Amino acid sequence: MEVVVPFSPIDPKSRLSSVLDRAERREFAFVMLEDVLDALSRTRGVPAPTVLSTAELDRDVGVPVEVDDRALTPAVNDVLASTADTVAVVMADLALATPTALRRLFASDADVVLAPGRCVGTNALVARHPDFRVDYHGASFVDHRAAAGTVGASVSVVDSNRLATDVDEPPDLAEVLAHGAGAAVDWLRDRGFALAERDDGGVHAVRCDD
Amino acid sequence: MEVVVPFSPIDPKSRLSSVLDRAERREFAFVMLEDVLDALSRTRGVPAPTVLSTAELDRDVGVPVEVDDRALTPAVNDVLASTADTVAVVMADLALATPTALRRLFASDADVVLAPGRCVGTNALVARHPDFRVDYHGASFVDHRAAAGTVGASVSVVDSNRLATDVDEPPDLAEVLAHGAGAAVDWLRDRGFALAERDDGGVHAVRCDD
Repeated sequence: MEVVVPFSPIDPKSRLSSVLDRAERREFAFVMLEDVLDALSRTRGVPAPTVLSTAELDRDVGVPVEVDDRALTPAVNDVLASTADTVAVVMADLALATPTALRRLFASDADVVLAPGRCVGTNALVARHPDFRVDYHGASFVDHRAAAGTVGASVSVVDSNRLATDVDEPPDLAEVLAHGAGAAVDWLRDRGFALAERDDGGVHAVRCDD
Repeated sequence: MEVVVPFSPIDPKSRLSSVLDRAERREFAFVMLEDVLDALSRTRGVPAPTVLSTAELDRDVGVPVEVDDRALTPAVNDVLASTADTVAVVMADLALATPTALRRLFASDADVVLAPGRCVGTNALVARHPDFRVDYHGASFVDHRAAAGTVGASVSVVDSNRLATDVDEPPDLAEVLAHGAGAAVDWLRDRGFALAERDDGGVHAVRCDD
């Protein structure tokens, strides 16, 4: 099995720009990548991943890095087309991923295993069918489920809130503060983020210097 | 074990008022309740629930209804205080709940089992400790985890995206359209809702007559 973690070090996490400046967003993206790589390394039976990066990285992330500056979909499809082996694709911003959650992704022996993300995305997948290809645009979970059906691949869906939580927008920081146990939650706390109640009774992440 | 499904038939789902009128929101709330009750009824070993409603219901929902017009927290705490039995509390708007997901809630034998919801809420729980009480205000998942610790109750957390998805806001309708398999998704489709791509590549639920 090949495990691929797509990552973009170029102006990442732009939807967090209301709460983190450009340098912080880049740092936070690396910290979340660190959490994902750490969780994968502690998941029994899973080989060391490769980071599939849109640009050279200026630091060692402890695993091999392959650079492909194209968009996510063609870059991942090239990996799928280049091997007869099983390929797993795990997003780099799953700051709540744990070995227990990831084990459920890898435990299924379906041809295509999908872990849906918020907004009908696909946060992690395992592909064992030679003809399965990805399309991360739009409602990718629905599209991937249909694409698997089209090529005659069996599908299994992993029902995990941890894997469904990709960290893209300010409300997602509250999830990291509540459920995180790795470098990302420490990083947020070190920068003064904490859970706070909104006037409407909801909860969000606020920064102490706000 | 007692299983309680809190429900409010009075102007429910107000945060969906940009996409559903008042009568539709009430109808949709009942349809989601139907899905939750159906999933519970198909979950092996789980007794028939009681609907804990803030007002009398004008229709038969197939299970006993107890009326308590107080807020959610005191109404649920009264149930917890009134019995030495295990109490499960499952929210009525978990339109993606399935027997498979619910079984994981009921399979744990921890003193307090928590299924977190979006925005650090608590969408379902099982309480076996006599001193555990709920507080649904604010970051209830964090508060419930701490409250369990305070009374010396062991805690288990169910990592389920289906149980984490309570349907409150327009983006949640996209999750129902993508992942639903019950009455709620049929109801939305019958009213013209479908998944559509936004200009930014994201996905939302649109109504055909929009």
